[in-house]
Amino acid sequence: MRLGLFGSANAPRGAPSAEAVQGYRDYTETCIEAEALGFHASFLVEHHFTGMGQVSATLTLQQWVAARTSTLRLGTAVLVLPWHNPVLLAEQVATVDLLSGGRLDLGIGRGYRWSEFRGFGLPPEEAADRFEETLDVLLRALTSDARFSHQGQYWTFRDILVEPPPAQRPHPPVWMAAAGEASARAVAARGFNLLLDQFASPAKLRNLIAAYRTEAAARGHPADPLRIAVARNIRLADTADAIASARAAQREQHAGMLALSRGPAGRAGQRSHILGYAETLEATLEHALIGPPEAIAAGLETLRDAGVAYVLVNAGRAPRETLRRLAREVMPAFGH
Amino acid sequence: MRLGLFGSANAPRGAPSAEAVQGYRDYTETCIEAEALGFHASFLVEHHFTGMGQVSATLTLQQWVAARTSTLRLGTAVLVLPWHNPVLLAEQVATVDLLSGGRLDLGIGRGYRWSEFRGFGLPPEEAADRFEETLDVLLRALTSDARFSHQGQYWTFRDILVEPPPAQRPHPPVWMAAAGEASARAVAARGFNLLLDQFASPAKLRNLIAAYRTEAAARGHPADPLRIAVARNIRLADTADAIASARAAQREQHAGMLALSRGPAGRAGQRSHILGYAETLEATLEHALIGPPEAIAAGLETLRDAGVAYVLVNAGRAPRETLRRLAREVMPAFGH
Repeated sequence: MRLGLFGSANAPRGAPSAEAVQGYRDYTETCIEAEALGFHASFLVEHHFTGMGQVSATLTLQQWVAARTSTLRLGTAVLVLPWHNPVLLAEQVATVDLLSGGRLDLGIGRGYRWSEFRGFGLPPEEAADRFEETLDVLLRALTSDARFSHQGQYWTFRDILVEPPPAQRPHPPVWMAAAGEASARAVAARGFNLLLDQFASPAKLRNLIAAYRTEAAARGHPADPLRIAVARNIRLADTADAIASARAAQREQHAGMLALSRGPAGRAGQRSHILGYAETLEATLEHALIGPPEAIAAGLETLRDAGVAYVLVNAGRAPRETLRRLAREVMPAFGH
Repeated sequence: MRLGLFGSANAPRGAPSAEAVQGYRDYTETCIEAEALGFHASFLVEHHFTGMGQVSATLTLQQWVAARTSTLRLGTAVLVLPWHNPVLLAEQVATVDLLSGGRLDLGIGRGYRWSEFRGFGLPPEEAADRFEETLDVLLRALTSDARFSHQGQYWTFRDILVEPPPAQRPHPPVWMAAAGEASARAVAARGFNLLLDQFASPAKLRNLIAAYRTEAAARGHPADPLRIAVARNIRLADTADAIASARAAQREQHAGMLALSRGPAGRAGQRSHILGYAETLEATLEHALIGPPEAIAAGLETLRDAGVAYVLVNAGRAPRETLRRLAREVMPAFGH
């Protein structure tokens, strides 16, 4: 089983610079250590306006990590395409991919946080159309060696050749999330890789993976299980007290995510990518792997039995001890 | 006298990845060596759609260099504000500034190349207004610890707090170019640093510097000569043949810049930032410093006598030998 990192980093306002940077430095050091421990990739979020300093310039931070590592893949999970000029984004994507020696994994999405649509002055109703148009131009910009023009609903470009080219040709692997079988099939149909979330049960994962792989094979796209990465909240905890405390920390993290994704009370159309899957906050913990090494190993075995070959570990705000113990006490049983 | 580098890097399409990346790697190695040789900064261009692979994602490349250096300042010369979403740009600026330990020099401009306006689908007539609005939001995004909203002609943002904060407070130094005394005064009035071009004569530089410093002092802004950087084409050449060949290379570089900035023949409103200063291509070489070390030293002395304290060396596509010889054979006479 392959393990990666579902990374995060915080650099909030209101602190002196030396403190603000610490979260980014910790993330960098975590990535350097994760590479040495045998982790395959670090996928990093993109968020805006949170007030808690979540990573915003995701590719810019990953470029720093790229310069400090040598084999770790640098993922995004996910770049929210509706915020971006597709040409400027393609140039950044290619620049990171080129300098990192082809280590970029390009996770993309439509966005779901009400506060971000409001912040950027964009109606959430436009998200799907903006996503499609931006993706179309982005891939063309990354791949085309000939000049092209684009006249769309949101963007106009004339007679452009986008440079630099990426290192990975025709373009870095694209990853998209899917929460249901229809969307897993749609990701397969595009020929993209699949990101699955930390709330799905092993039984649900089995169905999503089957749907993806069947559709990919039918379309003639690669259906390798390593093209599917499953996020999982994992915290090593050895005693009942430590387990209770880890569960509380995990619950608090989910409550924070939920608050950020919600619009004002009663606003129609608000979306939550958490409570879409679970009735209560407590239920969001159901498929987290929290416990001693043998419990984590058992959880990973269950995932493996469901067809999962690649797990992205979300180990919370201070992940290094969890990553070390995973490497030392859990991964050897999985061939590492 | 302080010396910096006016850097460039090329990663064109049409080559295999391993070749495409070489220009960026050479630029990185040049910066690492320039730092060791005592150069203060490297300022890097932003250009798009050139077909010759000029740097497009300037901050993304400079972030790589930031991770590989420790004291060199990372400059932009210039980021063209009308191309950018001011919030996404502020996030990148702050991320580079934060991780580099406050080493970013933020050169900004309005844009002048017809092919870039056309490529981005923007009328050149909007450049000045877009520049002002983007600058306004950019500086507010970098400096504000409180949420704010913006409703302008081109951009709308609601209730945003932009993170991370930059390391340099209130924001990284802003540099702007000026070609005449009125615009030098305008840069001083904004409290920004001044970039002067490679075509201006020492006599003209003296007037521009005086205009800037007088206005800065009158406004209560710092008027330190190190807040003015003067670009200069410099090539070390010891023999008549080498000098002729260096002049030819310099002329060819100017011809390429000119072709890129021009619109189609006869198009009204086309601008050239080269032939604005010189009647002919040959005349663009008039203030280049091309020759043996003693000629370069004499040229720098003339600049110093004109009030220039900070020179940005543009040494062409293969600058390392020139930088080494400057450090070894010229800079000692200037207190290095």
